[in-house]
Amino acid sequence: MPHALFGPEVRLMLEGNHLEEMKVFLGDLHPATIAETLSDELTVEQTWKFLENTGLRNQAAIFEYFPIDWQIRMAEGAGKERMAHLIEKMSHDDRVDLMRRLSPRVVENLLRLVDEADRRDIATLVRQDPETAGGLMTTDYAWLPQNLSATEALERLRVQAPESETIYYIFILDEQRRLLGVLSLRNLILAPRHALVKDLMETQFVSARVEDDKNVAADLIARYDLLALPVVDESGRLVGIVTHDDVIDLVVQEATEDAHKMGGVGPLAENYMEAGFFTVWRKRAFWLSCLFGAELFTFTAMASFDDELKKITVLAFFIPLCISTGGNSGSQAATLITRAMALGQVKVKEWRRILVHELLMGIALGAALGGIGFIRGAMTSEGLREGLPWHTLGWIIASSVMCICIWGTLVGSMLPIVFKRVGVDPGIASSPFVATFVDVTGIVIFFSFAKVFATFPPM
Amino acid sequence: MPHALFGPEVRLMLEGNHLEEMKVFLGDLHPATIAETLSDELTVEQTWKFLENTGLRNQAAIFEYFPIDWQIRMAEGAGKERMAHLIEKMSHDDRVDLMRRLSPRVVENLLRLVDEADRRDIATLVRQDPETAGGLMTTDYAWLPQNLSATEALERLRVQAPESETIYYIFILDEQRRLLGVLSLRNLILAPRHALVKDLMETQFVSARVEDDKNVAADLIARYDLLALPVVDESGRLVGIVTHDDVIDLVVQEATEDAHKMGGVGPLAENYMEAGFFTVWRKRAFWLSCLFGAELFTFTAMASFDDELKKITVLAFFIPLCISTGGNSGSQAATLITRAMALGQVKVKEWRRILVHELLMGIALGAALGGIGFIRGAMTSEGLREGLPWHTLGWIIASSVMCICIWGTLVGSMLPIVFKRVGVDPGIASSPFVATFVDVTGIVIFFSFAKVFATFPPM
Repeated sequence: MPHALFGPEVRLMLEGNHLEEMKVFLGDLHPATIAETLSDELTVEQTWKFLENTGLRNQAAIFEYFPIDWQIRMAEGAGKERMAHLIEKMSHDDRVDLMRRLSPRVVENLLRLVDEADRRDIATLVRQDPETAGGLMTTDYAWLPQNLSATEALERLRVQAPESETIYYIFILDEQRRLLGVLSLRNLILAPRHALVKDLMETQFVSARVEDDKNVAADLIARYDLLALPVVDESGRLVGIVTHDDVIDLVVQEATEDAHKMGGVGPLAENYMEAGFFTVWRKRAFWLSCLFGAELFTFTAMASFDDELKKITVLAFFIPLCISTGGNSGSQAATLITRAMALGQVKVKEWRRILVHELLMGIALGAALGGIGFIRGAMTSEGLREGLPWHTLGWIIASSVMCICIWGTLVGSMLPIVFKRVGVDPGIASSPFVATFVDVTGIVIFFSFAKVFATFPPM
Repeated sequence: MPHALFGPEVRLMLEGNHLEEMKVFLGDLHPATIAETLSDELTVEQTWKFLENTGLRNQAAIFEYFPIDWQIRMAEGAGKERMAHLIEKMSHDDRVDLMRRLSPRVVENLLRLVDEADRRDIATLVRQDPETAGGLMTTDYAWLPQNLSATEALERLRVQAPESETIYYIFILDEQRRLLGVLSLRNLILAPRHALVKDLMETQFVSARVEDDKNVAADLIARYDLLALPVVDESGRLVGIVTHDDVIDLVVQEATEDAHKMGGVGPLAENYMEAGFFTVWRKRAFWLSCLFGAELFTFTAMASFDDELKKITVLAFFIPLCISTGGNSGSQAATLITRAMALGQVKVKEWRRILVHELLMGIALGAALGGIGFIRGAMTSEGLREGLPWHTLGWIIASSVMCICIWGTLVGSMLPIVFKRVGVDPGIASSPFVATFVDVTGIVIFFSFAKVFATFPPM
């Protein structure tokens, strides 16, 4: 029943010190529901008091579902010993995520109280680059040697189960902890009791290297519909596993980063409501100022067409139109290509095919917009008053809008490919920076056409 | 070893008719790898011929990993009987996805050959709205009655396993198929052999209703780190499950749709490279024309400031700057708020708090940009030539940039909230439409300041 609101209940239980009710609440509900309710309703101290009414393992399970900021406040607000006990029971990847965010002094004090094996495990995981498969993995996997029977394997798993993040994939290791195969619990259950693990295991398994990019690990899990992906070192030794739930979080996080890039926000790792005003201001002001600075070049571009503008003031009325045409067609093409590359639908080496496709598309799109532009331009009475033939403005607008559209489409489609080729995130091509670049060139195109048509009027 | 390239090998096996090698290839590799290799290298007919060398169940497993377009071509290219046998072995959600895409005539012919139970199952799933949890679910779940012992339960599971999408969550049903509880295979394995299922099962489980939005189901799976989510009807009867791998696909798909919205592309469901030129042109031209049409209002806005512009032509040079300031600050704020809402960090009812926050932020951002704007404006020699005091242009630019920035930030932050409140997708607020709206108002703000400062010069 995760949809009900337990807030007021939780307060009443705590205020009335109803130990039995708290025990039932903590024992019956899903840890995620409990974590949400407690962190919404109670203070850090109250939460600790509430959690006392259940076992350490369940406390750890609930703790892992607190938002990371709340975890930090809980860790800093708790007695060191209490927190150290909890850490021993937490899943290995979640506790390392927390350690990375705590101050080094707090971590040092905590680790002194944690038992030797856990301390070593934390030290290993903390050392991993957070951008790699190693930074995503956990070390509490289930493993078995290869010479057991199915019955023996199940017996051994019963012992390991409470300590493992998942027992649905069992990793078969040799004496040097090299990964020999993967056995799903499903196949183990289905197998005859005396069958040997080494005959049951899948030896053609998918794995990632510890230094692989985290997105490579995520892609493998998504493509092969895995519950867990083994992570091995250069000698093929199993060092950890990445689980399916981490991939969902990663995909959501990447989507946010992509959106922020497109929206001209420096990646804001913090929660919107909890981030400090000044921090957010600094990041936002930085990006807006950069864009503003880049946009100043439009001034320079226009200053060189001062004479044309003085002669035909009505030209100024069409500036926003021309600029936005370039920006819109450019970001449309950039978005399409960036997403298609992210989904693996197009590859860098296909750039010629994309270039031809987008060139034709740009012409077809430009023709459509140019048509509308011609009508609007020809209908502009201000042109007549300034002594132009009725169709001149139409031709200026139509030809410049068409050219700008083709140009925007080409720039927008080729830049993500160029960025990817040189190892830069192609998502940046959808950002306002590219739009700004197309703005400046759009102005040059527009006024160049104006110059030509005003000097040599068609017909 | 999914990283190696098997392409040439596959062709050689087929051309040489090396049955034994094909059998080994099909038996040893992951179905996803086989599917990728075959669909990349072979024709539809060749793929069918190749697949003959393995059992029907494995054929179905491989078939499910083909891209949907390839599945359609395979289905249309195959004999009806062969395809009907395959359908009986496919997982229930994947085969329904295929049925939805095949022509009704083909579906009818196929279903006639499929056995009664499968036919009824397909009919039920096809009827579900694809946007709901029901449209995402599969019906091949593992289930048990509640009065079994752990040993009996394991025995029953052994029989069900090959037919079920997952046996890691077992759903406990009563005689009316009402969902009583969920039992994880992990807990079943851990339990004493004579313990009863009804005492082992979790009765506080998370579930979705069949008519819930598919994103609700996805969110539940992500939030509670589930492998599978039960889907029930209005009487609490289990009708299907949604599995974790579908959620990853869904999240990726939603990210693409969001990006397309931000990039001003009508949602292009098709693969970039495979979509028809005309279809893509129509969608892209439609959006660009709409934006173009909306941008035409900038013309109207500017036409009413014709006199100011004639008097001080240099004003035109700053138009792109003012316009882009509004667009950039607006889309920055819209992106932040939209993502924060999507991640559940802010809620619609907090709009007052967001309004105050963004108002202050807009002022702080506007001050920064206004400062830069003043310097650039004051440095503009063209103003002096047109008879303005040196600082007038500075004041005009600074005050309008600041106002436009505040306005853009407010519009950008409030629109997603308003959209969400009235039931429209808040992602639209990050789209170029809002930028266009801010463009028009930006021009009005800019020229209004110009009018005031030119008429009543400061100092």
